[in-house]
Amino acid sequence: MKLEQTETGFTLSLKGHTILDHNAASPAIFVGIGQERMDMYRGNFDIEDYVIERRGLSHTEVDGNRVTLSDTAGQPPRLVLTIVEGAIMFEATDPMLNRLWIRIEAEDDEHVWGGGEQMSYFDMRGRRFPLWTSEPGVGRDPTTEITFKANVKDKAGGDYYTTNYPQPTYVSSALYALHVDTTAYSVFDFRKSGFHEIEVWAIPDRIEIFARTTFVELVETLSTRFGRQPPLPEWVYNGAIIGLKDGANSFTRLNTIRQAGVEVSALWCEDWVGLRQTSFGSRLFWDWQANETRYPGLGEKIAELHDSGIRFLGYVNPYLCVDGPLFAVADAAGYFATDGSGKTALVDFGEFDCGVVDFTNEAAAEWFAEEIIGKNMLDFGLSGWMADFGEYLPIDVHLSNGIDAKMMHNAWPTLWAEVNAKAIASRDRTGDALFFMRAGFTGVQKHCPLLWGGDQSVDFSRHDGLVTVICGALSSGLLGNAYHHSDIGGYTSLFGNVRTPELLMRWAEMAAFTPVMRTHEGNRPRENMQIDQNPEVLSHFARMTRVYLSLAPYLRSLSAEAVERGLPVQRPLFLHYQDDHHTYTIQDSYLYGADMLIAPVWQAAQETRIVYLPKGERWVHMWTGETFEGGSEVEIAAPLGYPPAFYRSGCTHEALFVALREI
Amino acid sequence: MKLEQTETGFTLSLKGHTILDHNAASPAIFVGIGQERMDMYRGNFDIEDYVIERRGLSHTEVDGNRVTLSDTAGQPPRLVLTIVEGAIMFEATDPMLNRLWIRIEAEDDEHVWGGGEQMSYFDMRGRRFPLWTSEPGVGRDPTTEITFKANVKDKAGGDYYTTNYPQPTYVSSALYALHVDTTAYSVFDFRKSGFHEIEVWAIPDRIEIFARTTFVELVETLSTRFGRQPPLPEWVYNGAIIGLKDGANSFTRLNTIRQAGVEVSALWCEDWVGLRQTSFGSRLFWDWQANETRYPGLGEKIAELHDSGIRFLGYVNPYLCVDGPLFAVADAAGYFATDGSGKTALVDFGEFDCGVVDFTNEAAAEWFAEEIIGKNMLDFGLSGWMADFGEYLPIDVHLSNGIDAKMMHNAWPTLWAEVNAKAIASRDRTGDALFFMRAGFTGVQKHCPLLWGGDQSVDFSRHDGLVTVICGALSSGLLGNAYHHSDIGGYTSLFGNVRTPELLMRWAEMAAFTPVMRTHEGNRPRENMQIDQNPEVLSHFARMTRVYLSLAPYLRSLSAEAVERGLPVQRPLFLHYQDDHHTYTIQDSYLYGADMLIAPVWQAAQETRIVYLPKGERWVHMWTGETFEGGSEVEIAAPLGYPPAFYRSGCTHEALFVALREI
Repeated sequence: MKLEQTETGFTLSLKGHTILDHNAASPAIFVGIGQERMDMYRGNFDIEDYVIERRGLSHTEVDGNRVTLSDTAGQPPRLVLTIVEGAIMFEATDPMLNRLWIRIEAEDDEHVWGGGEQMSYFDMRGRRFPLWTSEPGVGRDPTTEITFKANVKDKAGGDYYTTNYPQPTYVSSALYALHVDTTAYSVFDFRKSGFHEIEVWAIPDRIEIFARTTFVELVETLSTRFGRQPPLPEWVYNGAIIGLKDGANSFTRLNTIRQAGVEVSALWCEDWVGLRQTSFGSRLFWDWQANETRYPGLGEKIAELHDSGIRFLGYVNPYLCVDGPLFAVADAAGYFATDGSGKTALVDFGEFDCGVVDFTNEAAAEWFAEEIIGKNMLDFGLSGWMADFGEYLPIDVHLSNGIDAKMMHNAWPTLWAEVNAKAIASRDRTGDALFFMRAGFTGVQKHCPLLWGGDQSVDFSRHDGLVTVICGALSSGLLGNAYHHSDIGGYTSLFGNVRTPELLMRWAEMAAFTPVMRTHEGNRPRENMQIDQNPEVLSHFARMTRVYLSLAPYLRSLSAEAVERGLPVQRPLFLHYQDDHHTYTIQDSYLYGADMLIAPVWQAAQETRIVYLPKGERWVHMWTGETFEGGSEVEIAAPLGYPPAFYRSGCTHEALFVALREI
Repeated sequence: MKLEQTETGFTLSLKGHTILDHNAASPAIFVGIGQERMDMYRGNFDIEDYVIERRGLSHTEVDGNRVTLSDTAGQPPRLVLTIVEGAIMFEATDPMLNRLWIRIEAEDDEHVWGGGEQMSYFDMRGRRFPLWTSEPGVGRDPTTEITFKANVKDKAGGDYYTTNYPQPTYVSSALYALHVDTTAYSVFDFRKSGFHEIEVWAIPDRIEIFARTTFVELVETLSTRFGRQPPLPEWVYNGAIIGLKDGANSFTRLNTIRQAGVEVSALWCEDWVGLRQTSFGSRLFWDWQANETRYPGLGEKIAELHDSGIRFLGYVNPYLCVDGPLFAVADAAGYFATDGSGKTALVDFGEFDCGVVDFTNEAAAEWFAEEIIGKNMLDFGLSGWMADFGEYLPIDVHLSNGIDAKMMHNAWPTLWAEVNAKAIASRDRTGDALFFMRAGFTGVQKHCPLLWGGDQSVDFSRHDGLVTVICGALSSGLLGNAYHHSDIGGYTSLFGNVRTPELLMRWAEMAAFTPVMRTHEGNRPRENMQIDQNPEVLSHFARMTRVYLSLAPYLRSLSAEAVERGLPVQRPLFLHYQDDHHTYTIQDSYLYGADMLIAPVWQAAQETRIVYLPKGERWVHMWTGETFEGGSEVEIAAPLGYPPAFYRSGCTHEALFVALREI
């Protein structure tokens, strides 16, 4: 990084690219004081800032690698920047400051990607992105009925930027990446001409900047920076993970499903902990141990399943319900976050209260990892689980480490991932036991072996349907999350919105070309189509699991690439076609490794799809063998069971891909 | 006003009440620079500010009545305040400044009213009010289906603060009033503890402050400051103004209505200018002269009507459609607002374009007053009209006076009122010809003889139904608008929302106790109940017009009081019961003059209503004569036709009120 003093300020550049141009007439660095209002409604947030002061720091003094900024000459310094290799370090000399705004130089035709796991817009240019972990929202589009109803009922509709996994990091088409090292609420505003404005509700420790000559190198660098996942477990390649929450009957249904030709790697029963009845319907019992009533003799059943080559997965989250036996243990040990008066803070999750296990308390984190995940889950026979939640840390609880919960809120998903990863490591099961999370933040990459895209609506909607999963995979993948997958058929069924067989089939088609195929019965299993309820759906699903199984050698090679280089399995087209600018804004198709291009059908009643094939390559249509020269759009027939999929002519795994035509 | 220097700043107080307390540690005056985004969609605005700088001016120098403010000692002054009797004058010495924020000292239990004509919240404490004239919105409550649909369809749903008539003036329960003398976009934020924050998107000329010992004196003072209306025309007391837009058939229907016993003062035909057909339905033809096709021989018919004691009213707005003959005249004369290139700016009003007559061009204003309102309307025989619109000045047109349209937008309603008033004065018809407006801003009081509450939805909804009209009358009344009325039955019928007979009857009941009774067919006459379509509705309406007629002597005395003192006809309870703090938050009942208290039924299916009767008075129920001691709530039977109404025992007009029982 090159720091240069100018007449009234300074510039900062990286490999000839100007990042900051700060001067008295047009400051790039602003500081101030704000008073935030943050209201949480079961993981949905209403946030507003009252900016009392915002001021460009117009006086600059440069001394070596230190830049001292003040309001005007002769005034005391308010902020000191220290430029080190790859980062700007910040030090607030005015202790009142709690807001920072920085304008990063931007080009007119620049594109930006990342921001964690973004579900609506892959290219973030032209929009504003608050970065705060929360419920994703139901509908996520205020112009739709479902979003409106969810907002009125529970303030739960969400918007284009609401996500379980935000991260203050972006990758620019100008071949650099920028990361803000903070857990404070922050905003990336990419709407301005000439600059991107970064807003942080704290003075961050530092802003890191990485410049490389290729996007691939940038992604490798970010993966090194944020942490790398282990390889996919070998058992995953055996087929789909079947999600059933039907008590002991789940085992019976699994047999039927297998008999229909479905390739199965695991049975996943969320309800292994038992149920409670609420006015909302059946909910899981949030006390993390096998429930003998709902699953009699579960330990033995898991062993039998294991013998037949099938793993068993469960469910856990970072709360403990007050009416379960584990609560009393944790409460007595002081493992919960507290309210102002030192009492355990109770959080209402809908007719039942829970304590929040305080992971900033090392003893609490260790207890949860050892006693719950270690003994109750891993030792009991589980090979994985959904590690749910992580976004809900209430902003008014008191934590063991003494840090404001508003500053810890974004940090929580990563702490939660770490607890899970440590438990697995304690049993030497890393790379074998598999948990999957929807919540995330900076550093989750290091601990969480698999993301899941959160709770999509059971539909084809633009901002909460099937297509959003691709956006989530691509954005999170750029930031070093190599493995992504989603609930086949979506999850959220509210206000009469239910799954169609077509949706279930289209989703399964896409999932066959992702690291993990996993079904979910959704939030209202009885009202929604399940894979074992319709012969056409079941046989379609069975075939897609055979496609997945056949691709296992290729997927295994992608997993090896992820481990070695940090490249995601699902990749934006531009990652390997950097010079083809047409690829920069594509978010509904992806490269599956370097050799395949997948363009899922994400709308209803489509018989064909238009697909852009990148330049400089000959692309072979997976199902027909027809070959296309890259560099233009093609319209491809896309009947059910045959999603538009291509491979690079002459690639290593060509024989494997050709064989798919026979399935 | 008393200016006192303090250790690091100054205080400003009025009659012992501190208004401003500005000091280095806690400044009350902030300045800055903002870049606004304002998008207009047919009178509905989407507005956002990008605050680049906001800074408390922490260095103060007091010299006599001048206060010079700068960032810090030794820095150039940015703002100079001059304290004169009753006002703070502002002068920006930094020409870059375009934002001002001022914190006015506030007490915890303080209430504030005004803000122009507010339709949702009379007491504004606890909420934030942008002050920008616009469409009022359809539904005005983002949690309702109608608002949602209006937003999705046309960005037209509105919210609690959207109003045709904003005004940056408030009255405080601390017995002072504050007025910001600016036409810039401004915001009153009454949500803070300890202060009210006033935000202005300009450095205003001045802020005026009035302190008095009673609310009555405050209202008199504001009426003197903003202008006073003439008396109600004598003909108005004859009965209701009947709104029909049915071409020549309107006259026939009027006869039927009269034969049913309805007391009529005037026939109001919006469609006197003719119609145009659009995909939306029939719209008026925006070229302001009688239409011989729709109303053959209208001049003679008006004369005949006049002879039978009934006036004729029409419609006008400040636009001219491109396909009408008046457009060409105004265009040739250069009377229209222009676009950047000097060409007449055309505004789309839904399948037809219009020019915006530029009232900052004196010749254009005079032409409109003389040729259109003078000759085509008054000389033709009209005794009044709806002077519609005024809120739509596009923010990107160029005006003759060279001032930015964003600064003229809020000024437009008052200019429009002035054109109408001047035309009437030119024919010496002030106090006889009656126009009514929904749009308003500071100074509209001086020109507009009658407000109408805008376009309510045809329902009982909290934020867009009958009850909002009371809030509109009370808030605007405090600021010197003595006369208010509304469309009986409401106006806006969209998305299947239609009038019930009950709504029409409840609205008529309220209107009988307002300065003017006027019906409106609404935006979709054929789909909605009309007064002449249902015998029960018609006979109920006829009786209410007789109530209105009987009250004429009392109403005449209230009009005289309005002329003499500026007191509104409809008054909040606290205006005369200042010591009864329970009255401060009441917005669904009102004093009708000093002697009557009206509590309209504003919800569906109500058989009774709970009414608070102020302390220190004996209140007589209008319909039964039952007497109640003030100071508590009473539950009163409220069958159709008998809205809860009370008078002060022993008041001057008692005999008149007693006689109402016989109607």
